Amino acid sequence: MPISARNVFKGKVTTIKEGLINAEVEIATSGGDKIVAMLTDASVKSLGLANGKEVVAVIKAPWVVLLAGTPEYRFSARNQLKGVVSEVVKGAVNSQVKVTLSGGSTITASITNEAVAELGLKNDVSVIALVKASHVLLGVPA
Amino acid sequence: MPISARNVFKGKVTTIKEGLINAEVEIATSGGDKIVAMLTDASVKSLGLANGKEVVAVIKAPWVVLLAGTPEYRFSARNQLKGVVSEVVKGAVNSQVKVTLSGGSTITASITNEAVAELGLKNDVSVIALVKASHVLLGVPA
Amino acid sequence: MPISARNVFKGKVTTIKEGLINAEVEIATSGGDKIVAMLTDASVKSLGLANGKEVVAVIKAPWVVLLAGTPEYRFSARNQLKGVVSEVVKGAVNSQVKVTLSGGSTITASITNEAVAELGLKNDVSVIALVKASHVLLGVPA
Repeated sequence: MPISARNVFKGKVTTIKEGLINAEVEIATSGGDKIVAMLTDASVKSLGLANGKEVVAVIKAPWVVLLAGTPEYRFSARNQLKGVVSEVVKGAVNSQVKVTLSGGSTITASITNEAVAELGLKNDVSVIALVKASHVLLGVPA
Repeated sequence: MPISARNVFKGKVTTIKEGLINAEVEIATSGGDKIVAMLTDASVKSLGLANGKEVVAVIKAPWVVLLAGTPEYRFSARNQLKGVVSEVVKGAVNSQVKVTLSGGSTITASITNEAVAELGLKNDVSVIALVKASHVLLGVPA
Repeated sequence: MPISARNVFKGKVTTIKEGLINAEVEIATSGGDKIVAMLTDASVKSLGLANGKEVVAVIKAPWVVLLAGTPEYRFSARNQLKGVVSEVVKGAVNSQVKVTLSGGSTITASITNEAVAELGLKNDVSVIALVKASHVLLGVPA
């Protein structure tokens, strides 16, 4: 898909919970993961979202936080995807880290080189990718 | 303005829709674009936002997603600004891409070099800049 | 903590304001700052958040906007932390800027080199770090 975001997951809507101006939408990805997105109610309507509808969930690499080692804390992020580091590309101050999820799909995180060093990130290290629901975009076939 | 965010759009508030703790605020920019921001109700009150009020909308470059080519999907992002690439500055892993919008203003996106290559981004390529409402800050004259 | 996000603040919950699907949570950090996070109600329940509960607030460096000089605008960001630049590490297109807050803790921002130049950021320059409530993750001891 011609989109700059590194992470695009195909799936189907499983739940929509509407508030006054925001809505929480859950999707089941074809890779077997659950992804939660927080949208405006206006977007839910304009995209015609409903249970069973095919969607893509889009997440930019700088919106992904990685956790490694034994978790000392439980986090509020609605999306917590378990996987294993499969590539680390270092830049001047930031690195791009690819994580292969259990279902086979990949999530890319952009994190600082400092964090790569502190977490000892390299191939085969187990991590959890955290993404806030408010950082997920949804798309529907045009 | 002495602010690190690359994107600052001047405009006026046209609509405020309040929820229990969040509020959706629409502004019309002087460049002729519409920008939607999701704020807390507390911010709407403390900034004294009301229809017609002069504001600036602030968006960091890493919060902008770019779409190129024929759109296969329609996206939930409330802000979808059409323009043409006017500059690409490549870094080690990330690039800064400037997009000139139809009204003449510019939006800057920070995206990976991988995405620049995949989307074939260079001067004069048409793109759509997507920004979630929850990623927009508003400011009022001090 | 083994987490890629550069900013982790320890604190205690002081206020929880619940909406239909979102909740606004205020914490007082041990460094004396107030941090506001916007979570889903589901996260508030699953983390067992309540007044007085120990938490960490997590903020990625690309989610931080810096303001310098005389403020011409007041901004909607619920988190506005005052401090002084204590380190600038330049990359190819982005820099990492560390800011020492009045309470002694540090917040790291990832901003463009362009912004570093425009704002004249270097050690001892006073800045305000802006962070939207919807960009803050909370964690509780596991």
